[in-house]
Amino acid sequence: MPELTIHLDSHLKQPLYEQIYDYIRISIADGKISCGEKLPSTRFLSAHLGVARSTVETAYAQLLSEGYMEAKPCRGYYACDISGLYTVSSPALAEEPQTGKREAYRIDFSPDENDFSCFPFAAWRRVSKDTLAGSDATLLAAGEAAGEWALREAVCRYLYQARGVICRAHQLVIGAGNEYLLMLLTQILGPGKTVAIENPTYPNAYRTLENMGYRMRPVSGDKYGIRVEQVEAQQPDIVYVMPSHQFPMGTVMPLERRLKLLGWAAQKRGRYIIEDDHDSEFRYKGKPVPSLQGSDGSGTVIYLGTFSRSISPAIRVSYMVLPLKLLAPYRIKCGFYASTVPREQQTALAAFLNGGYFERYLNKMRRIYKGKHDCFHALLKQEAWVKQIYGDYAGIHLLVEVNAKQSAAWIVDEAKHRGVRAYALTEYLMQKEPRQAYANGFDKTLLLGYGARTVEELKEGIACIRGILAGQPK
Amino acid sequence: MPELTIHLDSHLKQPLYEQIYDYIRISIADGKISCGEKLPSTRFLSAHLGVARSTVETAYAQLLSEGYMEAKPCRGYYACDISGLYTVSSPALAEEPQTGKREAYRIDFSPDENDFSCFPFAAWRRVSKDTLAGSDATLLAAGEAAGEWALREAVCRYLYQARGVICRAHQLVIGAGNEYLLMLLTQILGPGKTVAIENPTYPNAYRTLENMGYRMRPVSGDKYGIRVEQVEAQQPDIVYVMPSHQFPMGTVMPLERRLKLLGWAAQKRGRYIIEDDHDSEFRYKGKPVPSLQGSDGSGTVIYLGTFSRSISPAIRVSYMVLPLKLLAPYRIKCGFYASTVPREQQTALAAFLNGGYFERYLNKMRRIYKGKHDCFHALLKQEAWVKQIYGDYAGIHLLVEVNAKQSAAWIVDEAKHRGVRAYALTEYLMQKEPRQAYANGFDKTLLLGYGARTVEELKEGIACIRGILAGQPK
Repeated sequence: MPELTIHLDSHLKQPLYEQIYDYIRISIADGKISCGEKLPSTRFLSAHLGVARSTVETAYAQLLSEGYMEAKPCRGYYACDISGLYTVSSPALAEEPQTGKREAYRIDFSPDENDFSCFPFAAWRRVSKDTLAGSDATLLAAGEAAGEWALREAVCRYLYQARGVICRAHQLVIGAGNEYLLMLLTQILGPGKTVAIENPTYPNAYRTLENMGYRMRPVSGDKYGIRVEQVEAQQPDIVYVMPSHQFPMGTVMPLERRLKLLGWAAQKRGRYIIEDDHDSEFRYKGKPVPSLQGSDGSGTVIYLGTFSRSISPAIRVSYMVLPLKLLAPYRIKCGFYASTVPREQQTALAAFLNGGYFERYLNKMRRIYKGKHDCFHALLKQEAWVKQIYGDYAGIHLLVEVNAKQSAAWIVDEAKHRGVRAYALTEYLMQKEPRQAYANGFDKTLLLGYGARTVEELKEGIACIRGILAGQPK
Repeated sequence: MPELTIHLDSHLKQPLYEQIYDYIRISIADGKISCGEKLPSTRFLSAHLGVARSTVETAYAQLLSEGYMEAKPCRGYYACDISGLYTVSSPALAEEPQTGKREAYRIDFSPDENDFSCFPFAAWRRVSKDTLAGSDATLLAAGEAAGEWALREAVCRYLYQARGVICRAHQLVIGAGNEYLLMLLTQILGPGKTVAIENPTYPNAYRTLENMGYRMRPVSGDKYGIRVEQVEAQQPDIVYVMPSHQFPMGTVMPLERRLKLLGWAAQKRGRYIIEDDHDSEFRYKGKPVPSLQGSDGSGTVIYLGTFSRSISPAIRVSYMVLPLKLLAPYRIKCGFYASTVPREQQTALAAFLNGGYFERYLNKMRRIYKGKHDCFHALLKQEAWVKQIYGDYAGIHLLVEVNAKQSAAWIVDEAKHRGVRAYALTEYLMQKEPRQAYANGFDKTLLLGYGARTVEELKEGIACIRGILAGQPK
């Protein structure tokens, strides 16, 4: 029998039984106690160590359950062959350098960065904890492929009341981000389609569809949005639009244009409109513009929305509303994919919506973003280098056409050297029709996000651009 | 000024300030207080209601922050135009019937169902809570595309120590499930590839790759796994294999066959082996079989693993190890996709691994599944209708060839009527070479999962099949 010289320390945070468990486990793993060797009885070891017998019994129970020792009836405890067991060492102190991190700027005018200062962390933690407290085998088992029913119902209600989307919960598919849902959608619609897409647009949608083998046809718009004649000229199967608040232009598509687009889709079987409603939550003037889906009488609109802007990009929950005729193709082609959003999180999110937290948070953020918008707008209007501001009164960025010989791309480069990240509108132009862009002054237009910036940061960022255009040295 | 007849109830769980907030909010939403109407001062209302002034001030602060009222300097509080605000009603009592639920069986011999009875819920809740407690703006902001660095390092260590995978953390991509990672992989490798895949196999992998437009070539194996000559005959670009524990056959590929397969891949540029290591954690005889990736000297193996079996299918975390030469294509083609796994969950999972909980849980489950395996095996050996048992000593299912005139598919159908879900091996056969299957007795083979079943359920399920084969009525 091995001599067990365990130095127990009752002052440690680690309970005594765990100290015994650890000592024996490591001794077996290290080979100090060999396979087949007999271990002392719990009575003997507890007396030897001067601890309660139940303490040793707890340690032994754990070692038995994990396969480090076995109990032979009427004979005692024996160390097991542990060659099949997993032993994973703790992290080493010297970590490898982290790669692929984003560059850090003093001020980043990103249009994708949210302000989390008012996020109801307490409420979020409460609903998450309630979910965890109730977390049992059911919550760990595989959930429904299209998403938890409770969440689909909660999103369905929200979409009807806030966005005028007309659907039932079984038309909803919950997924980990818009890009993932687009990957599913291309599988539902089948390969080799042609897509007309607004130009400029949200590059990730363009690139995802392109990666999935779709032919992408960027189509420029006017102040009412995408031009349906130009769409027709491309002979697409699908049109990808953001009618309520086009990114990055901020265009709102009026009813007439919407009806024309819906008419195009209804003309021929197999035509679809993908309505990306990604940041329609934040409008600072008048009523929210209802969704295109709500006006669709022919079941041609696929509605896509996300909680990335309205809650957080880190929670990765998006939703897609399928027209009824695509439900069977969805089940056949994609019904076998398990949901990509953890069940725990879906349950917590449903509670966050049903508890009214989401509604309150949206209303609060709308006020905060409106305040930032008004302030940023006022600051910019005072600047001599600002020729025109557009895309205002919604979202969390502004488009600023500059009064300058230099291009916006040049300003962006200069600003980077000064620790400020601005964006050029041309970064959002898909490459296929570059010339026309310049006719619209796109090359002189900056895209400046303000959602996550403080007033001081906005002032400092503006001063930086002013300095660049005035030829000031760094 | 409106008459506010608020009935406060200090016995309610809802704080007094929230009762005031709710009353005014609903009155404004209902139009009982109209837009532009003046509201009482906090001093007046607190005296009127007999509550502390700070209580009313708290309610007013919330109404102001959410845009229901505005404060005009030196004039007082006024109700706002709320047409732009979100109001989402609470869930109605009558819910729509849930659709798409799985059929419930009395006993389900599913090979995909885990036993959660020993899951360390307390530890999982602790690491999740610790993550939530630390949850701040950083955790809500978008994370790294390929996954949180801490989790990638933890998985990297685990893979090296437990599976002999040789990689560094920057080669790892974390994603929401194997199918999602396969969708990424097809984008990295490019369209139109031909894939040789073991037959029978894991149908979801086959269907995902097929959905992504790859040409699938099922190749049958022998007792050592896929036959490399037959692979060569198909002229594929990619081979999809499960060398450490083939699903569903349970085959372990010996070193010689592995080297032959690696040799095939190294022969020509652009050839890759996808190694799906999905349930290699559970072996009940001898040492774990190391990964194929660990023997790969030419960077041709893409290693795929998951926590679905080892922790839970509901947490949806899989990982993919890319060979170095695929890192640049990954960044170019897929670098813009945000991670599909929530940051909170990745952080909690890293803590679960680094805290040693995962290692302990694996060892415990290995013992439990081994116990079930031994018991199920012994029970089956006593049955006259059992001709042969194979695929044993690993995973959580057995293959049972039956001594019967009827096919396994017929038995499965009969069992369904008796509330028992068994599986026929032919359900896992990809359709392109059906004839050969019958030569192997595949049509007479049942696949019976035991992971989530109790001994009583195993006995009852066996009795049901015995009854069917003995021609007993239901």
